[in-house]
Amino acid sequence: MKNRPIGFFDSGLGGLTCIPHLMQELPNERIIYFGDTARTPYGSKAISTIRNFSYQIADFLIHNDVKMLVIACNTITSTCLYDLKEKYPHIPIIGIIDPASKKVADSLDSSHHIGIIGTKVTINHKTYIDSILSYNSNLNLYDKPCPIFVPLIEEGIINNEIMNLSVKYYLDDFIFSNQIDTLVLGCTHYPLIRKNIEYLYPGLKIIDPSQEIIASIKKALTSRKLLSDMPYFENTFYASDLSENFINMIDAIFGNTNVKVVFKNFDLEELEHSKAAD
Amino acid sequence: MKNRPIGFFDSGLGGLTCIPHLMQELPNERIIYFGDTARTPYGSKAISTIRNFSYQIADFLIHNDVKMLVIACNTITSTCLYDLKEKYPHIPIIGIIDPASKKVADSLDSSHHIGIIGTKVTINHKTYIDSILSYNSNLNLYDKPCPIFVPLIEEGIINNEIMNLSVKYYLDDFIFSNQIDTLVLGCTHYPLIRKNIEYLYPGLKIIDPSQEIIASIKKALTSRKLLSDMPYFENTFYASDLSENFINMIDAIFGNTNVKVVFKNFDLEELEHSKAAD
Repeated sequence: MKNRPIGFFDSGLGGLTCIPHLMQELPNERIIYFGDTARTPYGSKAISTIRNFSYQIADFLIHNDVKMLVIACNTITSTCLYDLKEKYPHIPIIGIIDPASKKVADSLDSSHHIGIIGTKVTINHKTYIDSILSYNSNLNLYDKPCPIFVPLIEEGIINNEIMNLSVKYYLDDFIFSNQIDTLVLGCTHYPLIRKNIEYLYPGLKIIDPSQEIIASIKKALTSRKLLSDMPYFENTFYASDLSENFINMIDAIFGNTNVKVVFKNFDLEELEHSKAAD
Repeated sequence: MKNRPIGFFDSGLGGLTCIPHLMQELPNERIIYFGDTARTPYGSKAISTIRNFSYQIADFLIHNDVKMLVIACNTITSTCLYDLKEKYPHIPIIGIIDPASKKVADSLDSSHHIGIIGTKVTINHKTYIDSILSYNSNLNLYDKPCPIFVPLIEEGIINNEIMNLSVKYYLDDFIFSNQIDTLVLGCTHYPLIRKNIEYLYPGLKIIDPSQEIIASIKKALTSRKLLSDMPYFENTFYASDLSENFINMIDAIFGNTNVKVVFKNFDLEELEHSKAAD
């Protein structure tokens, strides 16, 4: 049981930003990742559509015998975490928002001006604000949707003046008018443009939820005695559209390790007609 | 019958680029437009998803008593035109690709180098190339997907250096390496960046399918004796997410006319559970 893989899923390649942190903190854990690259971005979709897609992917991962589900996507966590927990009560499910919210609430006080950026759906749901305020109601919070970041990142347009101008387009006024000193990257894609943000706004403190979630994963596995005690040699990455950019990003993560990476293109028609296997 | 409206639909606001041409050529025709702005872009989605969404919208428009369906979207035309014609045999349905293909085939010869740009789905389907070659097999055709244009346009990022750099990112090498002299805008969003393209590549001849489709609409209405003979004073624009950008774009089209424009936000949950009404 405990040596089964952890199932990660995201609307695309954003959730990959969790993987290096996981490898460092929990090096024995094996991964099955599903990126829904053919239907990305989720962040501007209807809730019912996001829920439907999430059930399809969770069914698929559970059918592949994972011991835990990690929702490495803020949009899905915002809209469907409780639906997923209700539908799959027998498997631990960790969402990306709560661990980062607790970190913000525990480490900052009312002297700070805290900005949260994310997709339209995540920001409109106010999930970060509600979650942070539930831990500490005495904080100054501001939020802003940045809908063009995900399509640009999924296209690999990152180390590029197009991305820098897009960051300025959304953030210049937001950061300067509100005197933001701390920025929460409320979308798992955004760590991929962390360097662009740090370059444009030096001195801004960045909180990265894809880093904070690892402690929650460790705690949940430990308390359930599910920590792997065997080294592993293979991780599997499924994508509904196995783009060059997706493969390159994974190669960059595992290029200098001895971990074998298996890529699998997943036929959406099959996913859409899959049956629950739990 | 003949004074009923024409139903236009698109994955977002791109199809609006047909409207000014329609008003000029067929000023008596009333419009009901549906833009699926909440689920845009379609151009990177699975075919089964696009087909499903298209049926929902066609059902809705037919239920609203339209006399004709115009698919003002290249992605939907590429993937679902024949499915839609089969499912709704009693109403004329016009797709955007065929009229422009005929224009290209009729007006150009083998001395030209013709480029076609569009979404990933449209380009991967090779619908323009197949359609043009079916009329004239002696032409030099090149194609290129430009997936970031639609998200930028839907966000209103147009008269902006971000858009100019994105145009150059996709087109510089494509146009210069292949010595393209004529460019087909194979996505109804792209006329909205026609000025950016003309500014960056002066001398390039542009073919705009949202202009070419009007002659086909006129012909189909004439042959079926469905041309409206009454002036009208109201058009209705539905969007699944009634964004500021969508409203602004329509205001810009009708601002100087005496046509009343009605905006309606359409609840996607309702659309997803709608029943066929034909």
